[in-house]
Amino acid sequence: MFGRSSVLAKGSLLRYFSSSSSSGVLKIGDILRQTRTFSNDDVGQYSKLSHDVNPLHFDSESALAAGFEDRLVHGLLVASLFPWIISSHFPGAIYVSQSLHFRSPVYVGDEIVGEVKAISIKQSKKRYIAKLSTKCFKNGELLVLDGEAMAILPTLALEHDSRRS
Amino acid sequence: MFGRSSVLAKGSLLRYFSSSSSSGVLKIGDILRQTRTFSNDDVGQYSKLSHDVNPLHFDSESALAAGFEDRLVHGLLVASLFPWIISSHFPGAIYVSQSLHFRSPVYVGDEIVGEVKAISIKQSKKRYIAKLSTKCFKNGELLVLDGEAMAILPTLALEHDSRRS
Repeated sequence: MFGRSSVLAKGSLLRYFSSSSSSGVLKIGDILRQTRTFSNDDVGQYSKLSHDVNPLHFDSESALAAGFEDRLVHGLLVASLFPWIISSHFPGAIYVSQSLHFRSPVYVGDEIVGEVKAISIKQSKKRYIAKLSTKCFKNGELLVLDGEAMAILPTLALEHDSRRS
Repeated sequence: MFGRSSVLAKGSLLRYFSSSSSSGVLKIGDILRQTRTFSNDDVGQYSKLSHDVNPLHFDSESALAAGFEDRLVHGLLVASLFPWIISSHFPGAIYVSQSLHFRSPVYVGDEIVGEVKAISIKQSKKRYIAKLSTKCFKNGELLVLDGEAMAILPTLALEHDSRRS
């Protein structure tokens, strides 16, 4: 149902967007996707930046003792896929809200696919208020994170993010 | 009502915790706080790490045209105060959920106080499930971000995070 834009970005990043958006304008039901694999370096950098030094992110023994298979990627780092997807397609988008339910652990090296699906779109003056379903999967099927976002979009025209291609 | 622990951490970071937790055990109504001022460097590093290159974070003209006073700090970077507060007091805490409503813009240089308040605490086997009210204020009073979090805590004993003092 959905095609790939086949735009390769830096590193391990591969981006897709819905072929149903081939018109270049966001419509209800459209899904925007990005794939990312978080590295040890990503987790280390995020820890320094966020000051979150929870041992579950660094100490394999603590992670195993808590019932995990390995050290965890920080939840809000995984969630950063959503504003990345939104802002890369809609530069100038304003984040209004985001809910996040962490369903399954994300480990360093897991390939995570983030999905942002348009649920409703309302015009307000010259801007648009979009309600979005936001999900992350690993191994192509396991839901690891879901929730909803609201964002104000300056336009419904999809930016193809040539800066990253 | 609430005292300061007066533990100075690195850089511009100052941490407080509720004097009502002087017993060292989290109780309903207790508030845990951290203060942070985000720098240009923080925003630049977060952008690289998250790949979120929304011009509202970099381009003053875009930010002004969108009705802001200056470039914005990324919402999820501001929100990182919450897991920092939770994990610094409860190493090994597991994030279950987080809702976020971005109420007012946060600019580089704004002093942001993050607050995590215990709303309910349930024991489950040898762990605790805490429902937490999560808020960020700037200039001591303006609500910029709020929501709720759920976290699994390995203990209710407050860690005083001597690693950072």
